[in-house]
Amino acid sequence: MNALNIVEYTHTLGAQAKAASAKMARASAATKSRALLALARLLRENTAALQADNALDLAPAEANGLSAPMVDRLRLTPKVLETCAQGCEQLAAMSDVIGEIVGMKQQPSGIRVGQMRVPIGVFGMIYESRPNVTIEAASLSIKSGNACILRGGSEAIASNKALARLVQQALAEAGLPEHAVQLVQTTDREVVGQLIAMPEYVDVIIPRGGKGLIERISRDAKVPVIKHLDGNCHTYVDDPCDLAMAVKVADNAKTSKYSPCNASESLLVARGVAAQFLPAIGAVFAAKGVEMRGCPESLALLQTVPGAQLVPATEQDWSEEYLAAIISIKVVADVAEAIAHINRYSSGHTEAILTTDHRHAQQFLREVDSASVMVNTSTRFADGFEYGLGAEIGISTDKFHARGPVGIEGLTSLKYVVLGEGEIRI
Amino acid sequence: MNALNIVEYTHTLGAQAKAASAKMARASAATKSRALLALARLLRENTAALQADNALDLAPAEANGLSAPMVDRLRLTPKVLETCAQGCEQLAAMSDVIGEIVGMKQQPSGIRVGQMRVPIGVFGMIYESRPNVTIEAASLSIKSGNACILRGGSEAIASNKALARLVQQALAEAGLPEHAVQLVQTTDREVVGQLIAMPEYVDVIIPRGGKGLIERISRDAKVPVIKHLDGNCHTYVDDPCDLAMAVKVADNAKTSKYSPCNASESLLVARGVAAQFLPAIGAVFAAKGVEMRGCPESLALLQTVPGAQLVPATEQDWSEEYLAAIISIKVVADVAEAIAHINRYSSGHTEAILTTDHRHAQQFLREVDSASVMVNTSTRFADGFEYGLGAEIGISTDKFHARGPVGIEGLTSLKYVVLGEGEIRI
Repeated sequence: MNALNIVEYTHTLGAQAKAASAKMARASAATKSRALLALARLLRENTAALQADNALDLAPAEANGLSAPMVDRLRLTPKVLETCAQGCEQLAAMSDVIGEIVGMKQQPSGIRVGQMRVPIGVFGMIYESRPNVTIEAASLSIKSGNACILRGGSEAIASNKALARLVQQALAEAGLPEHAVQLVQTTDREVVGQLIAMPEYVDVIIPRGGKGLIERISRDAKVPVIKHLDGNCHTYVDDPCDLAMAVKVADNAKTSKYSPCNASESLLVARGVAAQFLPAIGAVFAAKGVEMRGCPESLALLQTVPGAQLVPATEQDWSEEYLAAIISIKVVADVAEAIAHINRYSSGHTEAILTTDHRHAQQFLREVDSASVMVNTSTRFADGFEYGLGAEIGISTDKFHARGPVGIEGLTSLKYVVLGEGEIRI
Repeated sequence: MNALNIVEYTHTLGAQAKAASAKMARASAATKSRALLALARLLRENTAALQADNALDLAPAEANGLSAPMVDRLRLTPKVLETCAQGCEQLAAMSDVIGEIVGMKQQPSGIRVGQMRVPIGVFGMIYESRPNVTIEAASLSIKSGNACILRGGSEAIASNKALARLVQQALAEAGLPEHAVQLVQTTDREVVGQLIAMPEYVDVIIPRGGKGLIERISRDAKVPVIKHLDGNCHTYVDDPCDLAMAVKVADNAKTSKYSPCNASESLLVARGVAAQFLPAIGAVFAAKGVEMRGCPESLALLQTVPGAQLVPATEQDWSEEYLAAIISIKVVADVAEAIAHINRYSSGHTEAILTTDHRHAQQFLREVDSASVMVNTSTRFADGFEYGLGAEIGISTDKFHARGPVGIEGLTSLKYVVLGEGEIRI
């Protein structure tokens, strides 16, 4: 497509989404569940066909030398498709939040005032190679009564087109508008620039991808962005603490998986427990091949650990999201210094304190300015499913609108509902 | 100041606000109340001095031929100052929402997950000539534990400087940082452009003023804007309805005050009651000198009203916010046509249905896509105080973050709080 056609195409998608969103907002809970159950059924019935379409993406990806993890993320296995189908069924089973009325109270004038949860309207989602995100986004959009425009990675275009056809079939079976979920059918990058600059059609943009992509979108967008930048998460081991628990939790926070944004990238240790705690956790990290980038004080205490990979930390390390078998380590005086360090260097994603002191726990919870603050547990729990949101469309490191894991409620808004019996304002 | 100095000056304000916001977030409810009560006392003690400073603004305003209503809005009378002082006392008496934890539930993993209300950080407020807004914004900022940067109208600069000095004195008395509330000390317009483009320091911008100002700020801002565009509010008189109540409420919605954004600018009438209702409301409007811009069908029914000022409505009238003794009137078939008309032409502020039919009321509440939807009462009630919010910093016609009247909660955000006992993620 040429530039003019891209503008026209994207505006058509926008206008169609807007029109569909009004119908989706009115759809009953039963109708939306019907569409979700139909989608689950269609995913299972078409597993073989979807794998054939997926192969059209996998072949060039492998030929072009895409890294093995990237190819894995692109692959639609029967297990991935079954997980998608089960996700749709779980959403169908959840009670509907749309139309819920909260806080209805009578005011001195006699009017009763409350708030009703309604869909936000139209959201645009921009994501990379994983085609299962197409189903996650589509199913959340249906459940929340929104319309959406999905722009997946170009490597997954054949898979995404096949999945989007099933979504539209499921919508049609339930009598819902097919434009409620639209996949951008071209891989032209100019579409993204258009999609993020149509406030008349799109209410919010949700990008998923690298920091560069998200920064670029945030800078250029003319509509709100639910943005997730990096996850430089901290675990702080306090004095006093349960040392055995601290080793177990700090280990889990770093090593249970290296790639997720909720893995801890930095370990802060109170001076009072450092001599006991650091050799213990150091031995665990050494055994798992985790490189430790420490402050001078922590390196001195880790010196005796057999096989430890020790590197002096630079200023840059305190801000780093490694997503790898590397952790930065710093000894701090107390909880106040830990909080100050976190509020300076953290990306505002998730931080945990491991402590047995009630006042320290309370201070950490109140004063750490991050989307999730935790006591005595692993930062790896920062996740929509683990938080009981039923689903997750992303994790917001912003303070405006949604913060932390974003589930269905993040795709809704509250409007005021006022019930009267003829009251007038004097 | 030259352009370079403006950039430097605004960045200094931003950095100071950011530093103060961390201290404000930690301030106890008692400390914040102490500052608010000190401010109330100082406003009363300094009434004469404030009026003297105010005179420095009033003299040039009158000399320059500012309109009488504008001069009135600029004037700090003892009554205006007493209202400001009482507002501060009311805020001091309200319970603190900061630190409130909601929705704490245990998840299958054992962790307990809830959300804690925290200040949003730093807000910038851009407003016009009313100097009492300086006190409203400062007091809301203190109560909500935020820091703020206030940029008032140039006509009110002497008054605002005097008020801001009292605010800083009150902050100091309570031991809070003086940079928690900063007034921009120059009237240079370039400051606004800088203030809305410092995401590193400012979390949200709240403009109050004309539509042009707000559109310009929304277009250029690099941070979220709580924006309030126009209020083209509708009152829909349904079939069936209580006709006497409908006349009383429709009259109040239009004529109790012409200038507020929550006055009804458009009256929709169901065909089944139009022949009875329109002559009755027409007589009320005629007696009050309200010009009626009607569709052909409504004009035919209003023809017989003595003294009625009747004008055929143009397409433009359906979108108009008159803020004057003018109303547009249209006969519609039913509630569905009323909803469709509103969703097409409304600015999304406030709409009311006057009905005795339960299903029509429910349909209107669900399907009208505006910040406030009302049954059997006057659109004039759309207001933070009337809604029991205790205060109002603005009214949002957006769906993102805050919608409708914005009180203290609109200046806060929810962060996740997770409490564990050593749980790890498998």
